[in-house]
Amino acid sequence: MTILLQMNDADAAETWRAALRRELPDMAIAVYPDEIRDPSAIAYAVVWKPPRGMLATLPNLRAILCTGAGVDHLTSDPELPRNVPVVRMVDPGMTARMTEYVVHAVLHHHRRMREYTAQQETRTWRELPVPLGQDRHVGILGLGELGSDAARVLHTLRFDVAGWSATRKHLDGVASFAGNAELSAFLARTEILVCLLPLTGTTRGILNRDVLGRLPAGACLINAARGALLVESDLLHLLSTGRIAEATLDVFHEEPLPDTHPFWGHPRIRVTPHVASATPPETAAARIAENVRAMQAGHRPWPIVDMAEGY
Amino acid sequence: MTILLQMNDADAAETWRAALRRELPDMAIAVYPDEIRDPSAIAYAVVWKPPRGMLATLPNLRAILCTGAGVDHLTSDPELPRNVPVVRMVDPGMTARMTEYVVHAVLHHHRRMREYTAQQETRTWRELPVPLGQDRHVGILGLGELGSDAARVLHTLRFDVAGWSATRKHLDGVASFAGNAELSAFLARTEILVCLLPLTGTTRGILNRDVLGRLPAGACLINAARGALLVESDLLHLLSTGRIAEATLDVFHEEPLPDTHPFWGHPRIRVTPHVASATPPETAAARIAENVRAMQAGHRPWPIVDMAEGY
Repeated sequence: MTILLQMNDADAAETWRAALRRELPDMAIAVYPDEIRDPSAIAYAVVWKPPRGMLATLPNLRAILCTGAGVDHLTSDPELPRNVPVVRMVDPGMTARMTEYVVHAVLHHHRRMREYTAQQETRTWRELPVPLGQDRHVGILGLGELGSDAARVLHTLRFDVAGWSATRKHLDGVASFAGNAELSAFLARTEILVCLLPLTGTTRGILNRDVLGRLPAGACLINAARGALLVESDLLHLLSTGRIAEATLDVFHEEPLPDTHPFWGHPRIRVTPHVASATPPETAAARIAENVRAMQAGHRPWPIVDMAEGY
Repeated sequence: MTILLQMNDADAAETWRAALRRELPDMAIAVYPDEIRDPSAIAYAVVWKPPRGMLATLPNLRAILCTGAGVDHLTSDPELPRNVPVVRMVDPGMTARMTEYVVHAVLHHHRRMREYTAQQETRTWRELPVPLGQDRHVGILGLGELGSDAARVLHTLRFDVAGWSATRKHLDGVASFAGNAELSAFLARTEILVCLLPLTGTTRGILNRDVLGRLPAGACLINAARGALLVESDLLHLLSTGRIAEATLDVFHEEPLPDTHPFWGHPRIRVTPHVASATPPETAAARIAENVRAMQAGHRPWPIVDMAEGY
């Protein structure tokens, strides 16, 4: 019984191999593609972004264990074996990293740090007024594992925090808006919008001119989820009109972001190279191991992706 | 019975006057210097940075209520009336602002945001490794109202947080180091050092080559307290040797920071113009009013500065 390990580069594969070996010393580990000798021996596939159709070639696969929180690249594979559960990564280390990124970006916009950096360049000593955090309305699109943790810390920082999700959530001190009927009310009160939605057929392109146009003038956007949630040309338009004041973007339609892309040089867009929450093998390997051991003992892994919902 | 209001500019004085009037509608308010008619009528002085000797001219003064958390500019006034209590500002709005600034700066250094900004300028798509927050050792010099709140939120973000203070403190999840005997141990484990100490005869120049040199190589410094805590030339030296990797500075020996000062153009120093925690009159006027009402009712104001300690 073998675990197949598919990573996008050899260094990552070796780091994961070492971490999994510590957690599951009795299991064989084969790194894709070179080490697959007998496809029928593979029971678990630990994957990042597997080539289309690859998973369909493993006849005795029991689970597809994704090392990322987003599984859109799996659910969009038409050859994905439908009888094998796909398991998302929920890991405190990854969640903590995403929350760090989101909190940094919210504070960056809230405290006008882009303008202070520009002032340093011109040696300008001038205080820029900002509201108290309690009067700053932060809104989080998506209140799953990642969104609810970010909301919790932003609430601890005393921001006025709301979240929007498909179904209503109950989080201490966080106003919950649910479903399409409440999206406009959520947007109308949100000055700093954080997107942590999964990418599904429903959410693709949700950050468009219509939706972002319902934010108050001068709002800021943070997208740390998936590039395809955002209509990139709509953001450029809304920045040019001032409807959106600034954006922090970690994810893009095409990654790496092409050299000629207008986001790179835009004075009011902060670009980071999809680093908001790289999955840390140090903690995440234990989550993989828990699920493998659970299945070996006849239990279900967690959380299994609902293929109809897409997350 | 009159409240004297001394601010450094007319706009601030008018904002404070309006805020105090809401809180204390029955008290007369006179703005320094134009509105002082009868110095003997002044019972309370609400001050930012009063000119030396000014407070000694008020014969019936009952309390000096400072609008800032730091009172070094008062304690250093040789003509300060010794029989009148000096009251520091402790206000949740101001504390929240400082915590925002500190958390932003810690995350900026922890997540290598300076380097990501430089990468955006050269359109470079490259992930830079960072440790998990739980493995990042943040240390706070000064665990008073401000330091303990920052420690609390940094702990919520899952950083490994310690604090150093004159006396030992008991904060959930925060290691407490106390006194000179434990300063070296505190410094040796601190990768990101946050200074929130009061400026006193003991702490002046504490951020010097010797003390900062006991941090691990590549540590980062955040000073949001007072400029005179730092020996500026020592920081430049330690940055040049790489002992200190980066610094975020909000306060300086001379403010505004002179145009020719080397900090402005240093590639590894982030300069902000003493804005970490401007006191918000919206919330702080209520603190002043509570102390005035307490004294009118025969009680003591809080917190009274210990003139021997200097804070």
